Amino acid sequence: MTASRITNALVGHYPWTSPPLIISAPMRVMSGPALALAVSEAGGLGFIGPGIKPDSILTDLSEAASLFSERGSAALKPLVEDKGVLPIGIGFQLWNGDLTSAKKAVEKFTPAAIWLFAPKDGQRDIDEWTEGLREVTKGKSQIWLQIGTLTEAVEAAGSTRGRPDVLVVQGQEAGGHGRTSDGASLGTLVPEIKDVLEEKDAGDIPLVAAGGIADGRGVAAALCLGASGVAMGTRFLCSNEARIKKGYQDAVLEAADGGKNTVRTHLYNHLRGTFGWPEEKWAPRTIINKSWEEHTQGVDFEQLREKHDQSVKEDGDKAWGKQGGRTATYAGTGVGLVRSVDPAGKIVKDAREETTKILKRLQSMV
Amino acid sequence: MTASRITNALVGHYPWTSPPLIISAPMRVMSGPALALAVSEAGGLGFIGPGIKPDSILTDLSEAASLFSERGSAALKPLVEDKGVLPIGIGFQLWNGDLTSAKKAVEKFTPAAIWLFAPKDGQRDIDEWTEGLREVTKGKSQIWLQIGTLTEAVEAAGSTRGRPDVLVVQGQEAGGHGRTSDGASLGTLVPEIKDVLEEKDAGDIPLVAAGGIADGRGVAAALCLGASGVAMGTRFLCSNEARIKKGYQDAVLEAADGGKNTVRTHLYNHLRGTFGWPEEKWAPRTIINKSWEEHTQGVDFEQLREKHDQSVKEDGDKAWGKQGGRTATYAGTGVGLVRSVDPAGKIVKDAREETTKILKRLQSMV
Repeated sequence: MTASRITNALVGHYPWTSPPLIISAPMRVMSGPALALAVSEAGGLGFIGPGIKPDSILTDLSEAASLFSERGSAALKPLVEDKGVLPIGIGFQLWNGDLTSAKKAVEKFTPAAIWLFAPKDGQRDIDEWTEGLREVTKGKSQIWLQIGTLTEAVEAAGSTRGRPDVLVVQGQEAGGHGRTSDGASLGTLVPEIKDVLEEKDAGDIPLVAAGGIADGRGVAAALCLGASGVAMGTRFLCSNEARIKKGYQDAVLEAADGGKNTVRTHLYNHLRGTFGWPEEKWAPRTIINKSWEEHTQGVDFEQLREKHDQSVKEDGDKAWGKQGGRTATYAGTGVGLVRSVDPAGKIVKDAREETTKILKRLQSMV
Repeated sequence: MTASRITNALVGHYPWTSPPLIISAPMRVMSGPALALAVSEAGGLGFIGPGIKPDSILTDLSEAASLFSERGSAALKPLVEDKGVLPIGIGFQLWNGDLTSAKKAVEKFTPAAIWLFAPKDGQRDIDEWTEGLREVTKGKSQIWLQIGTLTEAVEAAGSTRGRPDVLVVQGQEAGGHGRTSDGASLGTLVPEIKDVLEEKDAGDIPLVAAGGIADGRGVAAALCLGASGVAMGTRFLCSNEARIKKGYQDAVLEAADGGKNTVRTHLYNHLRGTFGWPEEKWAPRTIINKSWEEHTQGVDFEQLREKHDQSVKEDGDKAWGKQGGRTATYAGTGVGLVRSVDPAGKIVKDAREETTKILKRLQSMV
């Protein structure tokens, strides 16, 4: 199957979307109903991220459904009704996720897509979640699986119970949790996975590229590599609709030279009291600040935690950022490409238009 | 200046080349005169890498000049004479390089381009080398500078004595030596550098993308990101003209899932007796094998070295590869994209044609 046919197949499942398909990633808490719907209304596909409690899924999906029924754009509604889905997706973090509440929520609201990531027990967990969620949504919700290595992609594609409808290929550029040490960049991961899936007669599974993409240049590049759609996270942190503190957004706007100023580390999870992640597999990429600086200088963890907690309590928006910020600022290596806070819909449309412009211009060059 | 104008400007300096400009990287020892010339003859730009001794530069350039004068293709010669250069480039590793022999060699042979990398003393070294080499080549040899962070790019572009003609942006995907911990992937590095250089009125410096690119998909992606040309290393390890052992090539062909099966480490340099690299700045990416496996299991370095040396002495082509190989196999995360040993000229032409095809196909999609 040619790349453009797969791309069209993907867009075809979400009839309100326009190619190239732009997706907002399910970032924990920060990707809420307003962001997801704004992205979908602009012809993309917006995802809600995991919330603070298992219950949050139900609250968030319910809010998204109300928002959609209240204001669902005139153009969007007729395209959606035909499919019987809510025109957004939802993401589940498997290692500490609760399949029972997940099933209950998606059964009630039938999101167009469900994005699974970070299983505790590898393909076994993925199989269980995939099967369970397909059953309650009667196959209407497409199952997306996020992977970060060729090995994971091949295993999932070959699974009878857990074969995904879409593979989200997460490059190590990505902010937040990604593969700790065995991940690669999109530049090699996407084409290699594409080739191997084709050899294994699984070339019909569309790939969505995620990691470091913040504008039309990244979108166009991902399409060249073989992706059928593109997910952006860090870029949407700086959208009006993100559920995020201003200090966090400012830190993203301020950061540059993403390789130098972000790092994948467990430190910030620990400072915030988050333990239990399968740490040998995943670690979150974050913008470095005072906590990291002192950590590398050998300052004791307990001391770092005290200072961190005090800063979070007292510093307001200054708890983030270069000037003494101490708390977690999960973001990808593309931070330097994010330079303004914009409406999510504008981000989607701008990226799409820039993509088209780039491909037109290059066409005339070669 | 638009991207396509910069691209054309770059190609214009090397009149035998065709866009998109495909470059073979100056890999130490392995990129010799035959490889460099084969790449240039195919409309690309081939680089000779550093040799074992400072003298090797002179020997290699002399051999390249003879090869060119003996067989220089009918199409290539008239395009070159006008410029008064040898239609290949040469790479210098600065930290242990010898500027005196470098000057002597390039003064005699005037390579079209000189690629500088890994300075010991940052921009100071770069300034000294750039100025010295420009002087002896009377500005005919273009100076290319390899960097791996935005910070380095900005510093070089702003230097009066060391402003490069071309910046080679090396992503952390790259094989061999690259930034140890502050590098990023091409996907974010190229567009961010491009934006910042433009803001600083240095947008006229063309960017060449290097790292993880092995075929037309990577080339097309790099052009979308803002590169004017593309350097490939690992791909040319598997060319007929590379100065490389068959066992090494076999290990590259065999390796897959590049994030999982390559790593940036000093271990293999040390096993081979190579010390002195500014290790906090650079480490080489290599395909992992038995030495790495045992190293992570805690086997003592001296023991690893003994086994390594014995393997190199006795195992022939089996000193590399998954089945017990122990020696350095420097390669990028794109190893899984390299699937055959081909003539270098074919690699160049195939990548160029695939790039055109991809850009044409995507044009019709958006």
